[in-house]
Amino acid sequence: MELSIHSLASGIDTVWVLLCAALVFLMEGGFAALEAGFIRSKNSLNIIMKVIMDCTVGMIGYFAFGFAFMYGLDKAGFIGFSGFFLNGDMTHLGLKIPVYAYWLFQAAFAIAMATIVSGAVAERMKFAPYIVFSFLATVIIYPVAGHWVWSGDGWLNKLGMMDFAGSAVVHSLGGWASLAAVYVLGPRTGKFAKDGSVNVIPGHNLPLAALGAFFLWFGWFGFNPGSTLSGLDMNIARIAVNTNIAAAAGGTMAALYTAFRYGKADPSMTINGALGGLVAITAGCAFVEPVSALIIGGIAGVLIVFAVAFFDSVRADDPVGAIAVHGVCGTFGTIAVGIFAENGGLLYGGGVGLLGVQALGVIAVSVWGFAATYGLFSLLKAIVGIRVAVEEEIEGLDISEHGITAYNDLEYNPMPTLGHTVNTAGTVMTVENRLAE
Amino acid sequence: MELSIHSLASGIDTVWVLLCAALVFLMEGGFAALEAGFIRSKNSLNIIMKVIMDCTVGMIGYFAFGFAFMYGLDKAGFIGFSGFFLNGDMTHLGLKIPVYAYWLFQAAFAIAMATIVSGAVAERMKFAPYIVFSFLATVIIYPVAGHWVWSGDGWLNKLGMMDFAGSAVVHSLGGWASLAAVYVLGPRTGKFAKDGSVNVIPGHNLPLAALGAFFLWFGWFGFNPGSTLSGLDMNIARIAVNTNIAAAAGGTMAALYTAFRYGKADPSMTINGALGGLVAITAGCAFVEPVSALIIGGIAGVLIVFAVAFFDSVRADDPVGAIAVHGVCGTFGTIAVGIFAENGGLLYGGGVGLLGVQALGVIAVSVWGFAATYGLFSLLKAIVGIRVAVEEEIEGLDISEHGITAYNDLEYNPMPTLGHTVNTAGTVMTVENRLAE
Amino acid sequence: MELSIHSLASGIDTVWVLLCAALVFLMEGGFAALEAGFIRSKNSLNIIMKVIMDCTVGMIGYFAFGFAFMYGLDKAGFIGFSGFFLNGDMTHLGLKIPVYAYWLFQAAFAIAMATIVSGAVAERMKFAPYIVFSFLATVIIYPVAGHWVWSGDGWLNKLGMMDFAGSAVVHSLGGWASLAAVYVLGPRTGKFAKDGSVNVIPGHNLPLAALGAFFLWFGWFGFNPGSTLSGLDMNIARIAVNTNIAAAAGGTMAALYTAFRYGKADPSMTINGALGGLVAITAGCAFVEPVSALIIGGIAGVLIVFAVAFFDSVRADDPVGAIAVHGVCGTFGTIAVGIFAENGGLLYGGGVGLLGVQALGVIAVSVWGFAATYGLFSLLKAIVGIRVAVEEEIEGLDISEHGITAYNDLEYNPMPTLGHTVNTAGTVMTVENRLAE
Repeated sequence: MELSIHSLASGIDTVWVLLCAALVFLMEGGFAALEAGFIRSKNSLNIIMKVIMDCTVGMIGYFAFGFAFMYGLDKAGFIGFSGFFLNGDMTHLGLKIPVYAYWLFQAAFAIAMATIVSGAVAERMKFAPYIVFSFLATVIIYPVAGHWVWSGDGWLNKLGMMDFAGSAVVHSLGGWASLAAVYVLGPRTGKFAKDGSVNVIPGHNLPLAALGAFFLWFGWFGFNPGSTLSGLDMNIARIAVNTNIAAAAGGTMAALYTAFRYGKADPSMTINGALGGLVAITAGCAFVEPVSALIIGGIAGVLIVFAVAFFDSVRADDPVGAIAVHGVCGTFGTIAVGIFAENGGLLYGGGVGLLGVQALGVIAVSVWGFAATYGLFSLLKAIVGIRVAVEEEIEGLDISEHGITAYNDLEYNPMPTLGHTVNTAGTVMTVENRLAE
Repeated sequence: MELSIHSLASGIDTVWVLLCAALVFLMEGGFAALEAGFIRSKNSLNIIMKVIMDCTVGMIGYFAFGFAFMYGLDKAGFIGFSGFFLNGDMTHLGLKIPVYAYWLFQAAFAIAMATIVSGAVAERMKFAPYIVFSFLATVIIYPVAGHWVWSGDGWLNKLGMMDFAGSAVVHSLGGWASLAAVYVLGPRTGKFAKDGSVNVIPGHNLPLAALGAFFLWFGWFGFNPGSTLSGLDMNIARIAVNTNIAAAAGGTMAALYTAFRYGKADPSMTINGALGGLVAITAGCAFVEPVSALIIGGIAGVLIVFAVAFFDSVRADDPVGAIAVHGVCGTFGTIAVGIFAENGGLLYGGGVGLLGVQALGVIAVSVWGFAATYGLFSLLKAIVGIRVAVEEEIEGLDISEHGITAYNDLEYNPMPTLGHTVNTAGTVMTVENRLAE
Repeated sequence: MELSIHSLASGIDTVWVLLCAALVFLMEGGFAALEAGFIRSKNSLNIIMKVIMDCTVGMIGYFAFGFAFMYGLDKAGFIGFSGFFLNGDMTHLGLKIPVYAYWLFQAAFAIAMATIVSGAVAERMKFAPYIVFSFLATVIIYPVAGHWVWSGDGWLNKLGMMDFAGSAVVHSLGGWASLAAVYVLGPRTGKFAKDGSVNVIPGHNLPLAALGAFFLWFGWFGFNPGSTLSGLDMNIARIAVNTNIAAAAGGTMAALYTAFRYGKADPSMTINGALGGLVAITAGCAFVEPVSALIIGGIAGVLIVFAVAFFDSVRADDPVGAIAVHGVCGTFGTIAVGIFAENGGLLYGGGVGLLGVQALGVIAVSVWGFAATYGLFSLLKAIVGIRVAVEEEIEGLDISEHGITAYNDLEYNPMPTLGHTVNTAGTVMTVENRLAE
């Protein structure tokens, strides 16, 4: 290969996008851990299997059809239509990197949108119809919204909507799709009592959920800065900083606000607060100052606490808080661009024009996500059923759907420390001193 | 430092290889989680300790001797012999990156091969002889096979064998070495009953195993594309896509096929199906089209289900499915290059020449892996013993080998949700409402 | 953007630093898993929440004030004072990358220092004063030490101290700050008996702890090589190798030495041995040969075993071994530069000059860390109290501080394998054969 300024530039950009794509892919592991940790153990393997289906069936759907509908040659600003199975001419994209690298990065986004819904429908949705949803989410639901905003000829793109890495396209879409899914599916048995009270169903493994949040935060360093598609765009540094600051602010505010409101800093809210900050900054990360990221993230962290309570109050049972994190904070973050963008934002003298476009755009994307998912879930409900039987729900979906439990044969020492002493020279535990207990 | 086209190119390549090496290293954490999750809790810490030994003792073995045997100056096409302790002239490698970067990437591969075996011998192999195996695996077993295929003067390399990132060199070798190890070691007590039936021994922590699979998939984005050793080789993008598509296809097919065959999608098989797809595409990822990757991965996903049942039927007790995933899919993937390679493959008019070389190559590597491991395990068995006593096996290797259990003092609320209600304004759990239960 | 040699160089360096920063950030997830796994389940969520506070509140502290105190315009070699909230002129840093990229990398270091202390004070420190500590650690304690050594005008920098990536600035500082914190806080109830014996309190989830160690090792591939701040500095390859070799040697020696001393290879010590090797090589990774890294890491692996026993013997209760890993190995590693540095080390004919500077430097940094933390903890103790009540300690901090336990509703099959047989054709577990148990 001959070396030139341009071949080097391609190399830098391709390395950057591929490594960022890998980081975004790892977010699936983060979602799996987060969602499994936030629900009951008897359904935890099933939710992980659903996320794996997003990575497998969903990934193939985006390879075969989804990418073509999203980035293929435009049809009336509404949908693309070329490049199925990554075949065909994609020069209209004007990419400086191989289309394969572009696809991989986009594919990791597509399955993330499907995975958002998996959390909301946890603990009662059947496995088979979920696979159908996952496939159609990456084949049509996500690509249509993506085409509107991110394709050069998309109608929202032409209106000037600014959604840098997908507060609307990925998160609002997934969040409001989740609300539709939850509405058609109904709440978990026992979640809402007839007297109006709400049963708290705590997650079975909060350390696992927290670990998932760390992977998500880590993966977001690919999600947002990688969306430049170029390592030569020096804005990647500020984008990464904004991403990080918004997460920090979201987590800080959720912890402080729950401590103030309930007397104790709530772990689930704090985790979701940080994630809400990440979701909210995703649209504007390339357009705002770090101090604005701090404000946007901080607001998202408080919004989470209200939103979770609100969806409980309207009996939308979302076991992991996906609607609050992705729907509410995604919508807020998209609109916030109209306020905080250095170029066109209300606070920077841009007037209300951009703000209006942002609001219109996020409403359009959200309505599409809600309606398409509502239709699909209703159809699946009528044809194959989407909900496990009550007995299966009580037994747990791991057994009913997969024939095995997540945890088996978990042996441990219940009280290994009582009365157990060794002299200071031998603090390492040996068989002998353990048997002596 | 003076900037030039060439110094920039070196920088890009070195950054690429180092970051890919880090990703490959993280696969060890993935293996540890996968293997620990797939076995019983009483042996889970021991298996993690064995993987840590690969990363420590095994890594030092490859530093001191293994790299020199693999990539040192050639002796008769069979072995290398220079560069011990990373000292000496390695200019014959013609590297465009520092030899240190090259070593790090290779070292992460070497220990992966050893780790494959750790899973197969889980739950009954002694710790001390495993350390000896791990050391000799990276010092001699892996380097010899690697020299044959990847060294410029290796005899299989000269024959034209194409194993881009190691379906044969790493995975077949490790898989068939596992079979030899399992054969010498014998099955776990209680696995096979006298009436010919097979006891199912489910993993103790399948969420942990799944998390491990996510890390492995993530790490493979370094394993395969990083094997170009250059970020300026634009093929890295297609390699990454092929890797991803094969994993997706493997997981999809294993889930669908087990659902069809057993009525339920099996989590362990689905996980191993995705891994089987990754293993199978490793040889051909740089040489085939994405649609071929889809087919190769999909076949691997089905192969896994048959292979696991087959090795059970011949009483080869492999607790994590390492022989099926790495041995069977690695062999299949190596041969598949002879069929699907755009340049020389049977389907592309290349005739059976390449197919023959691929078959010969993977047989040679596999026989070497099996024979060397068979000999080493037999020797270790005769000298120090390789198997723990039955009482220790029943007690668990965590206690017998390390004097401590993996899980201690695991307190949890068995039924935190029954009868527990709060009003909708206060869904966050507090001490008060928990104590009120 | 116009492409030039210089814009490409900036791109390579920025991509490198941002991705390394992401890896360093993931170390927080590693610390969280490691610390949670090493302590009792009843306090595990609380420790994770404290690490999250480092990532959120601590991160904001470094954004608002810490970075300015560390890298702002120098005041008398002691502290910086400009660049608050990332505003203001930072050209005196002479950076070739955007200041945002530099900040992100530094911020991930700053919060690591705070997190080190979180482990040492686990299982008995109140949540609220920890937040205050975390904030002040990144605002003032870490920045002052960092200014001395890493700012161009810092007094230790001017003396010629060589601490490449922070054996002193991050690890010694954090380790000896931990000792001060532990001293003011006192040991966990029940740790030390009146007869002088020491109760062993094993970690509740050692697989989780081991997973954390893998993330830390992985993250160190960003921590050390990333400290070049340039992907064009070809030394990054050797730095990565040295880092890796030292970790391998530390883990190897800790496993072998505990096997020799106690008859069994100890998992916690092996994990901490590898981490000790990483800590020790952090100062010298850019200055020493790989064989020296092997020696430095190996010594650290043995030091850990003695140090843990020593701190137990003086009744400094450090549940995760933070003082031993970070304090002792960080101090050793800083001094080791004076011995092993190719340029100025004792073994390379450099005399004792550098050795003296290194010793002085690490003592200065450590005394500062100890004194500042001692003062802060004493103040917090006097004003708000730093220790939970004994009843809360017995109940566990997860309930008392956050109102929820880490594990809830953890259902599992206690004995799923006994008497459970299927024929070889059907080794996949199904509902039927599970119910037949």
